[in-house]
Amino acid sequence: MKRKVAIVGASGYTGRELARLLARHPAFDPPLLMSSRPGVEPDAPETSFEPRLEKLDLERFRDVDGVFLCTPHGAAAPYAREAMRSGKVVVDLSADFRLKDGALHGSVYGEDHGPDLRAAAVYGLCEHARAAIARARLVANPGCYPTAVTLPLLPVLAAGLVDLAADVIADCKSGTSGAGKDPKKRTVFGAVHDNFLAYGVGDHRHAPEIAQTLRTDRVLFVPHLLPVFRGILATLWLRPSPGVRAADVRACLRAAYADEPFVRVYDKGLPELQFVQHTNFCDVGVADVPAAAPSGARIVVISAIDNLVKGASGQALQNMNLLLGLPETAGLLP
Amino acid sequence: MKRKVAIVGASGYTGRELARLLARHPAFDPPLLMSSRPGVEPDAPETSFEPRLEKLDLERFRDVDGVFLCTPHGAAAPYAREAMRSGKVVVDLSADFRLKDGALHGSVYGEDHGPDLRAAAVYGLCEHARAAIARARLVANPGCYPTAVTLPLLPVLAAGLVDLAADVIADCKSGTSGAGKDPKKRTVFGAVHDNFLAYGVGDHRHAPEIAQTLRTDRVLFVPHLLPVFRGILATLWLRPSPGVRAADVRACLRAAYADEPFVRVYDKGLPELQFVQHTNFCDVGVADVPAAAPSGARIVVISAIDNLVKGASGQALQNMNLLLGLPETAGLLP
Amino acid sequence: MKRKVAIVGASGYTGRELARLLARHPAFDPPLLMSSRPGVEPDAPETSFEPRLEKLDLERFRDVDGVFLCTPHGAAAPYAREAMRSGKVVVDLSADFRLKDGALHGSVYGEDHGPDLRAAAVYGLCEHARAAIARARLVANPGCYPTAVTLPLLPVLAAGLVDLAADVIADCKSGTSGAGKDPKKRTVFGAVHDNFLAYGVGDHRHAPEIAQTLRTDRVLFVPHLLPVFRGILATLWLRPSPGVRAADVRACLRAAYADEPFVRVYDKGLPELQFVQHTNFCDVGVADVPAAAPSGARIVVISAIDNLVKGASGQALQNMNLLLGLPETAGLLP
Amino acid sequence: MKRKVAIVGASGYTGRELARLLARHPAFDPPLLMSSRPGVEPDAPETSFEPRLEKLDLERFRDVDGVFLCTPHGAAAPYAREAMRSGKVVVDLSADFRLKDGALHGSVYGEDHGPDLRAAAVYGLCEHARAAIARARLVANPGCYPTAVTLPLLPVLAAGLVDLAADVIADCKSGTSGAGKDPKKRTVFGAVHDNFLAYGVGDHRHAPEIAQTLRTDRVLFVPHLLPVFRGILATLWLRPSPGVRAADVRACLRAAYADEPFVRVYDKGLPELQFVQHTNFCDVGVADVPAAAPSGARIVVISAIDNLVKGASGQALQNMNLLLGLPETAGLLP
Repeated sequence: MKRKVAIVGASGYTGRELARLLARHPAFDPPLLMSSRPGVEPDAPETSFEPRLEKLDLERFRDVDGVFLCTPHGAAAPYAREAMRSGKVVVDLSADFRLKDGALHGSVYGEDHGPDLRAAAVYGLCEHARAAIARARLVANPGCYPTAVTLPLLPVLAAGLVDLAADVIADCKSGTSGAGKDPKKRTVFGAVHDNFLAYGVGDHRHAPEIAQTLRTDRVLFVPHLLPVFRGILATLWLRPSPGVRAADVRACLRAAYADEPFVRVYDKGLPELQFVQHTNFCDVGVADVPAAAPSGARIVVISAIDNLVKGASGQALQNMNLLLGLPETAGLLP
Repeated sequence: MKRKVAIVGASGYTGRELARLLARHPAFDPPLLMSSRPGVEPDAPETSFEPRLEKLDLERFRDVDGVFLCTPHGAAAPYAREAMRSGKVVVDLSADFRLKDGALHGSVYGEDHGPDLRAAAVYGLCEHARAAIARARLVANPGCYPTAVTLPLLPVLAAGLVDLAADVIADCKSGTSGAGKDPKKRTVFGAVHDNFLAYGVGDHRHAPEIAQTLRTDRVLFVPHLLPVFRGILATLWLRPSPGVRAADVRACLRAAYADEPFVRVYDKGLPELQFVQHTNFCDVGVADVPAAAPSGARIVVISAIDNLVKGASGQALQNMNLLLGLPETAGLLP
Repeated sequence: MKRKVAIVGASGYTGRELARLLARHPAFDPPLLMSSRPGVEPDAPETSFEPRLEKLDLERFRDVDGVFLCTPHGAAAPYAREAMRSGKVVVDLSADFRLKDGALHGSVYGEDHGPDLRAAAVYGLCEHARAAIARARLVANPGCYPTAVTLPLLPVLAAGLVDLAADVIADCKSGTSGAGKDPKKRTVFGAVHDNFLAYGVGDHRHAPEIAQTLRTDRVLFVPHLLPVFRGILATLWLRPSPGVRAADVRACLRAAYADEPFVRVYDKGLPELQFVQHTNFCDVGVADVPAAAPSGARIVVISAIDNLVKGASGQALQNMNLLLGLPETAGLLP
Repeated sequence: MKRKVAIVGASGYTGRELARLLARHPAFDPPLLMSSRPGVEPDAPETSFEPRLEKLDLERFRDVDGVFLCTPHGAAAPYAREAMRSGKVVVDLSADFRLKDGALHGSVYGEDHGPDLRAAAVYGLCEHARAAIARARLVANPGCYPTAVTLPLLPVLAAGLVDLAADVIADCKSGTSGAGKDPKKRTVFGAVHDNFLAYGVGDHRHAPEIAQTLRTDRVLFVPHLLPVFRGILATLWLRPSPGVRAADVRACLRAAYADEPFVRVYDKGLPELQFVQHTNFCDVGVADVPAAAPSGARIVVISAIDNLVKGASGQALQNMNLLLGLPETAGLLP
């Protein structure tokens, strides 16, 4: 028998991406799409073939097996609570339940609508929390930049290949879909096309999330806005521990992710956005950046994801698969 | 009386950009455009209004006051020699005369066609070599990435604001025009559009040029390819000397460039490609990237140039103005 | 002595483009920039080098020689009235004074704020109304699509080269800057990038303006939205009069525009957006589209303009030059 | 038991797109990928996860059930012959077997390498030749523009809704992938990005293919190049028969394609490239373009396809499904 999920906030980019992924998932019926903007927008040349969005109705959680929350930051708590009260598992794609430290959550996101939910939520970086996710009721889906930054760094830091006396520079670049569908001065075509810029320098909300996952504050993070729609490429500059070369970092990553269906570590070459767009892959490549004095050299690790898939809706579906006891890759392989 | 210049290699992007800049220069007659691909390409829907390219003829150097060389790397020496023999000043936009160290030049660019010319050439970073350029006969026009990286770093390093016990990370991003006009697998639309990637990691020819200008090898450089046509944005990660903040770096840069017509240091905000495209400006902004331990913080300096203007043809014209005793800004302000 | 102009509505794309053009105009002092959004927007990483916008103050019209109105449609009348009362000449870039027929104006644009002004205004298609513009006090600057469509058609229709028993199809394509700077659902990056679409089919406001200028309603017009920022390319499908070939249409256009500085008719090849972006040129090319039965053939005329320059601010400056007795090309040639 | 196919010419865009589609097809084993450029290109940062291309070996046709030919125009005949000799069904994506008239084929494509094959081939516009395709051994896969133009026109012409005393204007726009993967002066990023242009005016190879399918030469066709990678949007201007309105054309198309899985006729609104990219759909919308005299009005039919899917590899797979007795939609629905 097929499962069924509800998507709350289905009109945005992540909601629609989830609907698209679910449409080819073998184990799910068509999802219940709910939105505060139900129907088809009257002024839009929407096709008659788009699925209809229904209005928000928490009663209907009873009819589903799981709930995806694609609501804006700060809005997830009442939906999560109601869904869990109905005995349903929940994957929240907002940032509301990601940070464990309450004071930190408050300083980054303001009012805290669900300290209990934050405490209960499992941070859903599947490759590193699979067992906990399978037992969870509520999953906090990781942010897009944190996914791109932490997947390649976790095994390398754990193996001691990085000299943390130096910092790790995470110079990251993202397409505009990360900023959401609502028109903003920042995301209008004339402000993005043929342009490139840094934003949120020294002040981006994903920095503490990265620190929490990596258990270090040695990673310094700056995001940039690319004139593309989907994709994040992270350029990670590591100071290697003495004697460590790119080949060692590569070998470590290949070993760590050898059995992972969604992390591809390159033998040679480096990832490009094109290699991961419209997929749930996180691609990783490694290269040396030599210096006159070998002790001054860095290793550059490049990772690439589709921010709407592995950085949001794909990873969310990976989590839901785990929560519902389905094969983790169902509906997510090309 | 107006001056006249020849452009050798006028069919490429930098040659055409020079022709465009000269067209609005008050002190120059229309340039002599020479190319190994003279005429108008037969299969191209070129407009009848494009200037005609003439075939290469070194005799014609006699009729001009100065010569721009827009030839491929390795080809400039015979043209430079002949122009100088005719008593003309030369600005070379290739890399042939930039590196002073012969062994280094050889290892980076292969055969050395003009050790004497390399020795005689003045490196044309105008803001830092104005007097020497004015006395020169041959100017090696700086590379595009080196211009974007060294202009902001020179004053800051000179003022001791950077802790060189740490490295300086130069994470740079460029549009495709830097790769030239000839179709390549790398620059075909389908390989660039909606894509983003790092290239030349640990192995880019501009790294030694940056080191030579900054007199340090602590700067580590990685370039990336943006899906835009023109523009370079450099994200420079500095470890500040103890007690130094972004405001200090900004003040240093504002003081250093207060009287410079082509370097704009921002009071607030950060440069974007849009702010400099089609101009000869190098825009610079500064921001703090704090860390839990203040000693782990970085300062990010962002610089932006149009690689075809300040990174090539505009800077070349600025050099030619100096060589011919014209006002340095002639033809270059908006 | 230099002239001075005011720009009302200086924060939008056309206002900014005018400011840029005026900055390199030899006969004007820096313009007075006025906006209902004065200052520098607090949340924007604007550069400290952008000109400051002042608040709207009609008193200040006294200090200038001419006024550009870059206000939204429907808002121009009071500014125009006040400027003319102060004895200043006015170029209005909105559509408020373009249509002569009052009923038509009402049906297309709603309330009519200035029937007297519409009556007094000269339609500023410079190449075809030069003398009248020079004597005018108020110029209605032509719309972007009408400029691209009517410049190539006027001489060809006048010469009787078109069989108006058939229709003229104007299949037009524009960049997004025509839709203005304010973020809209239609112009957000994710809705434009990598996309293409028709809009306003059978219902675009520029259709009656085209009919008025060409004095025929045989031209059928559909606009499309291109994923570029600036530029309009119009594909005009004409049924030629018996015996007329592309060469005849080309010869007619070359003769008509032989002395025009801003209309370039191609000998061979066809215009592309790249050939006109950032210029005040209207480029025109002509080609045969043969049919099995020669009587079924069409001739295609392709015209291209930069909608922000020849289609708006450049043409407005061309008009202001005429109004103030300056050389028509001043500040507008490359 | 699963089927297996070979792809000859697997290195190009259509070959790769086929491989991607087959990867999610439930009834096929991984395909045999053959190319004159086997292996992984040595200088390319290809991922180690790309499928390996093998060298061309006609012997290996024995091991497969069907063969896709993605070879350049003029090269298909020997492969088709050999595959058919081995008893395999063939879908040719080139233009080699599309035109039935030998003289016409010669004048358009030059030397005729397979008159017998052209005679035997079924033109694979599935929605209109399903039964013939199912019985065929060799299918000539339709061109991209002809697919976008003929699918919406066939039912409307058959129903007599179009006044063919007037012409039908097919003003078409395509992304660059139609021009193939090899770098060309025309398709380098700097020539496409932020640009738009008409090409092949009066002389495009797809015009006779359109005429053959529609059995009329009243359709006039001009293609344009969009700065997008995938997608064709066709703007079709019809003169309706007396009394016919857009609603009638829409009703005709909705009836004709009511049971077709891959043609979606809109109730309201018009197609955009975004609605069909990465799908095998042909989307169709209809709108009135009124005129002062009703007899001068046109109806505009807009169709949109992904040129690499419905315009090439998707339609080819639809044909192969029919040839092999599989469900026509297998592997092709979202």
